[in-house]
Amino acid sequence: MGPVQIKQILQSTEIGQTVEVKAWVRTKRESKNAIFIALNDGSTIHNLQAVAEPGQLPDDTLRLITTGSCLRIEGTLVASQGSGQAVEVKIEHVQVYGTADPDEYPLQPKKHSLEFLREIAHLRPRTNTFSAILRVRHALAFAVHKYYNDNGFFYLHTPIITASDAEGAGEMFRVTTLDMNKPPRTEDGAIDYKEDFFGRETNLTVSGQLEGELGAMALSKIYTFGPTFRAENSNTTRHLAEFWMIEPEMAFFELKDNMDLAEDFVKSVISTALEQCADDLAFLQNRLAEEEKNKPQNERSMPLLEKLKFVVENPFERLTYTEAIDILVKSKPHKEKKFQYHVEWGIDLQSEHERYLVEKHFKKPVILTNYPRAIKAFYMKLDEDGKTVRAMDVLFPGIGEIIGGSQREENYDILLERVQEVGIEPESLWWYLETRKFGTAPHAGFGLGFERLVQFVTGMGNIRDVIPFPRFPKSAEF
Amino acid sequence: MGPVQIKQILQSTEIGQTVEVKAWVRTKRESKNAIFIALNDGSTIHNLQAVAEPGQLPDDTLRLITTGSCLRIEGTLVASQGSGQAVEVKIEHVQVYGTADPDEYPLQPKKHSLEFLREIAHLRPRTNTFSAILRVRHALAFAVHKYYNDNGFFYLHTPIITASDAEGAGEMFRVTTLDMNKPPRTEDGAIDYKEDFFGRETNLTVSGQLEGELGAMALSKIYTFGPTFRAENSNTTRHLAEFWMIEPEMAFFELKDNMDLAEDFVKSVISTALEQCADDLAFLQNRLAEEEKNKPQNERSMPLLEKLKFVVENPFERLTYTEAIDILVKSKPHKEKKFQYHVEWGIDLQSEHERYLVEKHFKKPVILTNYPRAIKAFYMKLDEDGKTVRAMDVLFPGIGEIIGGSQREENYDILLERVQEVGIEPESLWWYLETRKFGTAPHAGFGLGFERLVQFVTGMGNIRDVIPFPRFPKSAEF
Repeated sequence: MGPVQIKQILQSTEIGQTVEVKAWVRTKRESKNAIFIALNDGSTIHNLQAVAEPGQLPDDTLRLITTGSCLRIEGTLVASQGSGQAVEVKIEHVQVYGTADPDEYPLQPKKHSLEFLREIAHLRPRTNTFSAILRVRHALAFAVHKYYNDNGFFYLHTPIITASDAEGAGEMFRVTTLDMNKPPRTEDGAIDYKEDFFGRETNLTVSGQLEGELGAMALSKIYTFGPTFRAENSNTTRHLAEFWMIEPEMAFFELKDNMDLAEDFVKSVISTALEQCADDLAFLQNRLAEEEKNKPQNERSMPLLEKLKFVVENPFERLTYTEAIDILVKSKPHKEKKFQYHVEWGIDLQSEHERYLVEKHFKKPVILTNYPRAIKAFYMKLDEDGKTVRAMDVLFPGIGEIIGGSQREENYDILLERVQEVGIEPESLWWYLETRKFGTAPHAGFGLGFERLVQFVTGMGNIRDVIPFPRFPKSAEF
Repeated sequence: MGPVQIKQILQSTEIGQTVEVKAWVRTKRESKNAIFIALNDGSTIHNLQAVAEPGQLPDDTLRLITTGSCLRIEGTLVASQGSGQAVEVKIEHVQVYGTADPDEYPLQPKKHSLEFLREIAHLRPRTNTFSAILRVRHALAFAVHKYYNDNGFFYLHTPIITASDAEGAGEMFRVTTLDMNKPPRTEDGAIDYKEDFFGRETNLTVSGQLEGELGAMALSKIYTFGPTFRAENSNTTRHLAEFWMIEPEMAFFELKDNMDLAEDFVKSVISTALEQCADDLAFLQNRLAEEEKNKPQNERSMPLLEKLKFVVENPFERLTYTEAIDILVKSKPHKEKKFQYHVEWGIDLQSEHERYLVEKHFKKPVILTNYPRAIKAFYMKLDEDGKTVRAMDVLFPGIGEIIGGSQREENYDILLERVQEVGIEPESLWWYLETRKFGTAPHAGFGLGFERLVQFVTGMGNIRDVIPFPRFPKSAEF
């Protein structure tokens, strides 16, 4: 079904065969001896060159063949004379499906800023950079599903609209069908959510974890891969209001198993990208080098492919929060008062601290564990000392926290106490608490922000550039 | 990482080896000569039998081993004496992770109604029926991703929060961070959505199609697989407020290619389920037969596996809407005035008409095409006669419409006219219209409601039973 993809044609060795190509024009170049049309159909970063003789195509047709126009070409596959490709197509017939007026079409063959491209997100997948990112994103997403399927996990669709707040924090988007202008009210004047669609207040989920745990307590190993939401007014290069998260949850896993899985998983999907997206990653590596060429040498990133191979080939450093604080307190920037935020046991580590550990001290991904209970979520398992919890954060160079997880508190009484401690009504989590009442078991899980992973693998600095249609404050276009 | 799954242990032939099992107790049975514990960890419909000698386990432990409790068992794999399984575990040691008080735990080994189980959706994955459904659901979801990956499609994450309404119809959920109690207002008293999170009115998406088309106009073949929403007050066995949809969109595909893809795709994923979920489907087939045993013979469903094989092995019937109307007009129920709704060209086919075509007339899946323009969406390509559009609906026995799709209108002027005709502001779809201005091409796509597919494959009558945590009017529990 459908036309043969350019990716396949470029790998074909059947010189002399007739081919039909359907694709968009990237560039047209006319020389004395030939007309060269570079075609791309999005299946690969590489263009297919189609060649016509001067005068072969009617002027009316030739005029319409401009950057962005869409063509159907019939021709013969021939060995290419040029150096860029093994094969090219000798044009026999051209049909123009759709034109792209050069005076109006914004994607002319010149450099466009990422900011400008964000404003035309409906067209940017037609650029080399964004088509490469989207192909890598696809390969990573499929690798995620394949990894969990191959390892005996079940994909669980946890709800998007929810009446609970998994984190006990995080600002949420309200979901409602009430008339905003004149909402129904109870006798005492409050909004009457009983009249709302679900008969109660509902929001967009911030995490599928709590429901994921319900699945793990029945199927042993599950994972989610779905959209999650934060209504935080963060205009940064690392935050989106809508993003995709992967959350595995495993019965009978303790903290070490959880770390082993997180490390194996993230290495596995990056390996897959390296194998399957070599051309796109090479292109993105060059893009990044080009972007950074005016930076001083010591501020430039490691070449992209080298960085990815390094992560895949080296064990992550594992240490406790307490050990990390110790390293930070003894560090040069601490002694020289170069850190903006004070370091002492109990603080929530700031980006500058994480970066020091990952990029300066260990120079590799780091897994920090056993954080103080006060700075972590209520569902994390309390350590024997009562001071720390079995949390783990995986920190990546340039990205910071890419994975956050923990062993979960499986003891009913301790969990109930923690729920009350953070001010959640136990009744609102009756179903979650019941899993500790009926056949409770040690279990653990983590969350990976998919866009952070795509950022790391593609080397893109702004998270808005690794999702097709980013959602952030004051922006829901497309 | 993690324990060996029961699915693997049951296939093991290494008699005499030591095994460690972590799982939940389904039943415990004590006889004069032995204690039998049936264990399940969700990896398979089958239980693993663990056997202890009378008096071997301390009374304090034995007392805690009840239905729903969670155990760690060490033992030896031995050939089973019983007829139900090849191997069983001779218990050496038992650790109780979590108890399940028989007076409180609702899932005792007896028959529970589906209605009751819906009220304890946090526990129902621990039943045979729901664990089987969730495993089949997983296998189908993975098969979807694999099918598109293998066929050169890219997985595109289209936005969940959107300012557009793809269908030009359909009631939507509002997404907002405004204070419901005292929303900001403009000078003329209207709600001031400029103050809302995204600076405009936003809703939950009803379809990723329009954004999917943007992807297809760059990458040629994309698909989405994400949650979609309908704020319709439908309390039926076929509707959910939140459900998952698969939407492939292909440049250069016309209506026939679209039909070919839809048929090949749905057969492929059902085949995969038949191959990979044989045990679960056999269980679900028996469940359905049991459920229907009191029905008269002629009202019972075809046995589940037979039905699935039939769909996979036979070509779908393809005909136009006009031909279908002709058949209906000449049909016995029409002549005998047995149809509730009148039949004539131009009507929106009712469920009774679709069922007659699929279940009585053709006795197989049917693809209906070229519907009247007035009853279909604005983006469908107009036929030459100006009266019909290149729509297609795939109708399945017992389910009705499982796939809806069309070739898309790629002509800018016609599309603009259609947009205005249905009363949409062209400015609100400027980005969609621009794809027809810049390099437009013939293209097509369709949507498959994932839960409808899971219903068909599992034979479950109520759509609320094929998604872990269903969302419907007045219900957003868990």
